[in-house]
Amino acid sequence: MKRNTVLSCTAAVLFAVTAAAQGAGKPTPAQRAVGYRQGVMTAVGWNFGPMAGMVKGEIPFDAKAFALRAERVAFLSTLPLEGFIPDSRVGKTDAKQEIWDNMDDFKSKMETFQTEAAKLAEAAKTASAVDALKPQFGKVGQACKDCHEKYKAD
Amino acid sequence: MKRNTVLSCTAAVLFAVTAAAQGAGKPTPAQRAVGYRQGVMTAVGWNFGPMAGMVKGEIPFDAKAFALRAERVAFLSTLPLEGFIPDSRVGKTDAKQEIWDNMDDFKSKMETFQTEAAKLAEAAKTASAVDALKPQFGKVGQACKDCHEKYKAD
Repeated sequence: MKRNTVLSCTAAVLFAVTAAAQGAGKPTPAQRAVGYRQGVMTAVGWNFGPMAGMVKGEIPFDAKAFALRAERVAFLSTLPLEGFIPDSRVGKTDAKQEIWDNMDDFKSKMETFQTEAAKLAEAAKTASAVDALKPQFGKVGQACKDCHEKYKAD
Repeated sequence: MKRNTVLSCTAAVLFAVTAAAQGAGKPTPAQRAVGYRQGVMTAVGWNFGPMAGMVKGEIPFDAKAFALRAERVAFLSTLPLEGFIPDSRVGKTDAKQEIWDNMDDFKSKMETFQTEAAKLAEAAKTASAVDALKPQFGKVGQACKDCHEKYKAD
């Protein structure tokens, strides 16, 4: 009885670990797509963060650094859409089913993000003060929010 | 006694799940850096793949698609270096300690990757046949390999 308990306990732990580590082998196309779009969005966040810090006054404004981050976000914004392939709501993903049910609207929101991010990158090339960038930065943030609210699970 | 066994079993499963899901909460700066560089490299691989397929003749050559992938890889190649911050060999990472022990050499290898990827993107703008791109594509692949062999665990 004790041995059985140990065995079932071990099995339960193994199952939990295996379930959590799913995808460690060769990923399926859907798993690759999830990894790709999440990877891009992680890179977006990494570059968005310092701009947000400057806008909020948490870190000193550095025009060159802001322009570089803005250029990166603008470029990266063009990448994730192709990762939302059919039937790729698999594994650990915050992507809601609504994306695929409303793909035209989702694409439109992604394009808004691209457009606003491109405008920010353009403005950042010549801005010498953060105040001049705040309105356009706000529009990029709003584009993120509009899409996340509808299509990203918390 | 039975209750205690159930409790300790549950605790063991919870521990395993928690351990496996580490980082699901607010990540540390080092964890963020790992996620960032891995995200970028995932995006590099996603875009490198179709070019490799065309070079190998596995998929038909599409000059426009090749040029787009090459431009993306060239841009993305400039991103990951800043993710290799001090003390960020944490969690699930293939980054070897040798990176931090030989940072100048690592940077040099990253710069070679950037240079060769930029040359490929430039060449791809005007190439009308895949054969013309094979030598430069090979140099990009070699740059990946040279760095991975020394600094990436299998």
